[in-house]
Amino acid sequence: MQPLPTLDQQPRIYPQGSPLVVIGGAEDKEREKSILKTFFTIAGGPQARILIIPSASSMPEILAEVYRLVFVQMGAAKVDVLNITSRFEADLVETVERVRASSGVFMTGGDQVRLCNLIAHSALARAMQQGSILGQLVLAGTSAGASALGACMIARGYSGEAPKRNIVELSEGLGILKNVIVDQHFHNRNRLPRLMTAVAARPDCLGIGIDENTACILHAEGTLEVIGEGTVTIVDGSELIYNTINEIQAYQPLSVGSFRLSVMAQGLRYNLRERKTL
Amino acid sequence: MQPLPTLDQQPRIYPQGSPLVVIGGAEDKEREKSILKTFFTIAGGPQARILIIPSASSMPEILAEVYRLVFVQMGAAKVDVLNITSRFEADLVETVERVRASSGVFMTGGDQVRLCNLIAHSALARAMQQGSILGQLVLAGTSAGASALGACMIARGYSGEAPKRNIVELSEGLGILKNVIVDQHFHNRNRLPRLMTAVAARPDCLGIGIDENTACILHAEGTLEVIGEGTVTIVDGSELIYNTINEIQAYQPLSVGSFRLSVMAQGLRYNLRERKTL
Repeated sequence: MQPLPTLDQQPRIYPQGSPLVVIGGAEDKEREKSILKTFFTIAGGPQARILIIPSASSMPEILAEVYRLVFVQMGAAKVDVLNITSRFEADLVETVERVRASSGVFMTGGDQVRLCNLIAHSALARAMQQGSILGQLVLAGTSAGASALGACMIARGYSGEAPKRNIVELSEGLGILKNVIVDQHFHNRNRLPRLMTAVAARPDCLGIGIDENTACILHAEGTLEVIGEGTVTIVDGSELIYNTINEIQAYQPLSVGSFRLSVMAQGLRYNLRERKTL
Repeated sequence: MQPLPTLDQQPRIYPQGSPLVVIGGAEDKEREKSILKTFFTIAGGPQARILIIPSASSMPEILAEVYRLVFVQMGAAKVDVLNITSRFEADLVETVERVRASSGVFMTGGDQVRLCNLIAHSALARAMQQGSILGQLVLAGTSAGASALGACMIARGYSGEAPKRNIVELSEGLGILKNVIVDQHFHNRNRLPRLMTAVAARPDCLGIGIDENTACILHAEGTLEVIGEGTVTIVDGSELIYNTINEIQAYQPLSVGSFRLSVMAQGLRYNLRERKTL
């Protein structure tokens, strides 16, 4: 049986600073581009100085160019690409200076483990977090770039199975969002069982599952706002009264309950501190 | 916004009589056969007189023969097949007499709409319900035969999509279980979003999603017991505070929350009246 965290004991999820834009992947880049436009606007609109980090991807140059063109066409004052390929680069003073000169950082999709291996605990990651907390930098991540934002991260997992320990592997993310586990391509890839399993393993973390072409905007005061085509699913394990995840073998089905589970489409808002819909 | 049913206003889910065996489909018929053996035992073991109703299937003779052999090999006193092919047959006195002469009725998989079209509101359905309530008949259903047990039934639906009204179509089931919506092949076919949508449409009903080779035994006192390989998922909408299902277009994503969601593996028990795990 898991110890039950009370809300009072939980650190704040996003206490201060700039909004974050957390995107569920496959966001529209060709038509309305409403999610990318929202990020562009929050990051300063025509004054935006956007830095694209494509390092999660195995084709970083191609992907970076797609986003660079989108933000250039929107009219950003500056659009730059920072393709980190080693931890050495992530700790360079000039890397930090490029982050500090930006008003928005956009992390692309790819593999969140690759991204975290390159930049977790680096000077780059600290500069991103600091800029966000100081209200000087708007961070955005899509797909792998969204997953990496949490302190606890789904490294990999499986779909189409009942919750059991071996359908999800957790690792450490960038830690920009505390006490949150982000999952993406969510209903599109049937990921609710894996997010439930992740939250069973870490009931101190709030599970946030974001569909494709959908995003959460996390506002400084602790409000999550849904935009885009699909839904955002909240898996709240703070009221679990049973949970066998630490008692069963990895391949055995999990017993866990009860979660509080909410599904929210565009326009809905959720209070992350009190864990309720507004 | 849906009116919120309170537990007091809800009719009892399964008040009295014989246990029911509600199976999530694809139960083992060749090796341990533990779920079918449980039904056989509850229905009387060597004294069991089992009636197989294969009418949900498009190949009723073949499927009936598979189950007939299983129960014969287990040593049932009598195993018989009742293949209803018209509503006329479902209302015959001799059909009712065959049900009354049985200690267990087993409804196979297939298409729950076909099954209900043939037998809902018939003398056969009434005889099954009466036998069950009087404690003289153990009812079992697998897959389509499980779905059909509820008063409200998922007629068809889609997987791999965010909850929205058009991913599930509800119709009237046999009504043997009140205030329950049963879904089957559950995590195997990623059916949690469709069951959540069904419960959003009918929050007076408790959603019960059963995995393959897994079953619920519903005991007379209102206890659900899980047996088998997978999990049973409970979707409880009795505490919903928002629900846009009657406000949105069928193709638009649904906002609904918060459900109480529990996942239970073999050995767990759930109190259907108080809606909590035991």
